[in-house]
Amino acid sequence: MTMKDPDWAKLLRERVRVVLVRPSIAGNIGATARVMRNFGLAQLTLVQPHADPLDVEARKLSTQGEPILYSARSAADLLEAVGDCILVLATSARVGGLIRRDMVISPRQAAQRAWELARSGNIAWVFGPEQTGLLNHEISRCHYLVHIPADASYPVLNLAQAVAICLYEQYQSASGGVLPVAPRSAAPAALLERMFQHLRQALEELHFLWGERAEYLMHGLRHLLSRALPNPEEVDIVMGLARQIRWYVRHYGPARESNRPSASTSPNEAGTPTSTCPSKPPATANADAADRASNNPPPESGFQQSVPDAAN
Amino acid sequence: MTMKDPDWAKLLRERVRVVLVRPSIAGNIGATARVMRNFGLAQLTLVQPHADPLDVEARKLSTQGEPILYSARSAADLLEAVGDCILVLATSARVGGLIRRDMVISPRQAAQRAWELARSGNIAWVFGPEQTGLLNHEISRCHYLVHIPADASYPVLNLAQAVAICLYEQYQSASGGVLPVAPRSAAPAALLERMFQHLRQALEELHFLWGERAEYLMHGLRHLLSRALPNPEEVDIVMGLARQIRWYVRHYGPARESNRPSASTSPNEAGTPTSTCPSKPPATANADAADRASNNPPPESGFQQSVPDAAN
Repeated sequence: MTMKDPDWAKLLRERVRVVLVRPSIAGNIGATARVMRNFGLAQLTLVQPHADPLDVEARKLSTQGEPILYSARSAADLLEAVGDCILVLATSARVGGLIRRDMVISPRQAAQRAWELARSGNIAWVFGPEQTGLLNHEISRCHYLVHIPADASYPVLNLAQAVAICLYEQYQSASGGVLPVAPRSAAPAALLERMFQHLRQALEELHFLWGERAEYLMHGLRHLLSRALPNPEEVDIVMGLARQIRWYVRHYGPARESNRPSASTSPNEAGTPTSTCPSKPPATANADAADRASNNPPPESGFQQSVPDAAN
Repeated sequence: MTMKDPDWAKLLRERVRVVLVRPSIAGNIGATARVMRNFGLAQLTLVQPHADPLDVEARKLSTQGEPILYSARSAADLLEAVGDCILVLATSARVGGLIRRDMVISPRQAAQRAWELARSGNIAWVFGPEQTGLLNHEISRCHYLVHIPADASYPVLNLAQAVAICLYEQYQSASGGVLPVAPRSAAPAALLERMFQHLRQALEELHFLWGERAEYLMHGLRHLLSRALPNPEEVDIVMGLARQIRWYVRHYGPARESNRPSASTSPNEAGTPTSTCPSKPPATANADAADRASNNPPPESGFQQSVPDAAN
């Protein structure tokens, strides 16, 4: 139902209007202006306002939406406010009775309907007074009655929060709801497999993986890390950790206690850039064969037993 | 992704928590409590609050959410506030930088994720201070960073409005987003066809439909009324109108001017219940043959020509 339009921001600004009918709390007018600014709207109309949109409280709450308060239009009645609109969306927490019950749609449905029509003409979201909401004769003059699903025992939202939810949905429909960051990239299976091979080798050399429980533990780690869908940068972090473990074991492990290379630095301390490229093996790669042959016994540690068995 | 759970209201109340970190404006705490009440949440935790949750402004804005202010818990830091939660959702308007950009999800995604997990444990929605938002070290301790898509030039929402949008989505996920009214029932095609037959007959007797444009006009009316998907009650209204037109034509039309039945009342004035049942024909049904035979000329009127041709 949603349509992405190259001019969507312009349409939102020029075609979609908020109408507050007889608002009585200045802070609500200000908070409405702010959230209009947040969601890219610009046109505010006040029907017989009982509070001053330029009151200090309204201006304080409007923050960067203050220009919307200054450009707000006043209207003598609802028809004057929406006379040029092709879709008029009333809002109410009350949906009972013959007049209302067949007009009810959700904010999401309303926003989609509005966005389908915004290229054809102006749209108005109409909100009633804080104390009473819109009256039946006002709702009868609108196309739909928007109801925000809420707890039946107290569905009456604060005016500015109701505006926020409706405009959030309107912005979602208009913008397509895309987040302002690149979609998260998950590493492909082949890259994960290479990471797990490096990790397994390191954990074997560390004697974390040994004996009959090795497969279960490795499966547990695989499942834990795979489920988080690591991205390539995170794969680099894990591969860097594996390299560092292997470097540490070779330089400080018990089999080599006598010939610890005092002048060397660890791959991490040396600032070696982490890389997934197999053409840049870690500096310690040529020590593999010697380490495997030494077959060190595991260090005394209760850690391995405390890892839950992934096969259970 | 959404799952309807018979205990959803209980889960929402007992498992889903709002955490405000260092809130500084009492009104925002109050408006948060109100919207929690609106969307069926009950547990509010304040981390190092810089405003009093029982301040007069907080209580005023909380309305029926006031008990939530009285039962709000205080926590010394974020970990104390969310230590028992299995999913911790940070919120922020700022999504740039290494720490944040890969954690970002939308309120809708977050609400769905939360609802999938609510049966397994507690969920926290965490909102930062009004002036700064959550800090990196706080966000790093959360599972996801929720960002409300908004205008890039000013995406910073008022705290209580951001809470409203997130809890609206949480309530949508939990409740399935159903509206508190029966789904609108549209009349089946056979009933619409009967309505259009009655309408056509009445409009022919009224001499609105005659000559070569009759088909176009009838098509225009059909399309207009069909598109609105009338429900059975609305079909009754249109059929009642058709009956009244036919009654009026028979009693006051030019061919019968001489023998107007002064004592009779119209179907509507007599309060005859409208009905779609063919076993209750309108009182004037037996006048059909006579009327058809009279073949009255159309009254002088520019109306018909002003109806746009539906075939164009």
